[in-house]
Amino acid sequence: MANIPIFSDEQINDFMQAALDEARQAGSEGEVPIGAVIVHDNQIIARAHNHREQGQQATAHAELLAIEAANQAAQSWRLENTALFVTLEPCMMCAGAIINSRIPVIYYGAQDAKGGAVKSLYTLLEDERLNHRVEVHPGIKSDECGQLLQNFFSEIRLKHKLVKQLKNK
Amino acid sequence: MANIPIFSDEQINDFMQAALDEARQAGSEGEVPIGAVIVHDNQIIARAHNHREQGQQATAHAELLAIEAANQAAQSWRLENTALFVTLEPCMMCAGAIINSRIPVIYYGAQDAKGGAVKSLYTLLEDERLNHRVEVHPGIKSDECGQLLQNFFSEIRLKHKLVKQLKNK
Repeated sequence: MANIPIFSDEQINDFMQAALDEARQAGSEGEVPIGAVIVHDNQIIARAHNHREQGQQATAHAELLAIEAANQAAQSWRLENTALFVTLEPCMMCAGAIINSRIPVIYYGAQDAKGGAVKSLYTLLEDERLNHRVEVHPGIKSDECGQLLQNFFSEIRLKHKLVKQLKNK
Repeated sequence: MANIPIFSDEQINDFMQAALDEARQAGSEGEVPIGAVIVHDNQIIARAHNHREQGQQATAHAELLAIEAANQAAQSWRLENTALFVTLEPCMMCAGAIINSRIPVIYYGAQDAKGGAVKSLYTLLEDERLNHRVEVHPGIKSDECGQLLQNFFSEIRLKHKLVKQLKNK
């Protein structure tokens, strides 16, 4: 049985801040700003951000890349006794990767009404038929995490609008 | 709108045979024998097999590795107009990766009653709330695909039994 790490509010705040720093880095690279970190023994052992466009890789979500980096750091596919912090509610793929890597607890920021598989469309991490279940803490720094995404998409819409106006001139 | 490739029965048989060859390769490396291939323009553009134990990577399922290889081959995260063939019903993670990569059609062999997310536990690929849906063909060479897995687990059980008997001597 995996131990679920316990954190103070300050630690939770700090680890989500680190995930937000990763998300901002993604945004500065032209990627949808989503970031994740994985913590073991109160230390961040993996940091990652969305890299889909740059890598042209459908699987390059922040959580998946963080899990792979943590597997590498731990030299084990089992990430028992760790915690994942991510700025957006995980999708099906990432929820599945969390289960497959046996992470016992996750903290996430903004809700994803369109694709979230943890609370929104599905509650995959709490399925009693599976051999692993995950403790879920939603809504950590959700305003900041959500605002980052909103600003990113607003900027994209504005760019598209300007391009269209220029073409019509 | 992605075109869904259409195959003859013979092609379907051949592509699943290629996935089975990958599965056997996994088994010969001590991995759970699961294999996958991705087809584009009637050609296999990616082949992969389960590599979890050797890589100590929780995400190293056959489908996920095949998708990443196909992204690389196509230089695109979008795998429209392709088809995935896999020997076992995909789990949540791999079903999510199929959606994230926009693969329009999959063929799979054996059913996974404990973890399958395509027909068994969930029907994730047919969710009308998502922005992508996948045509699903289950049960292709299912006896052969399933037998490979059963033989693998029987051998493991036999080995454990022999080790136990030796220890008790």
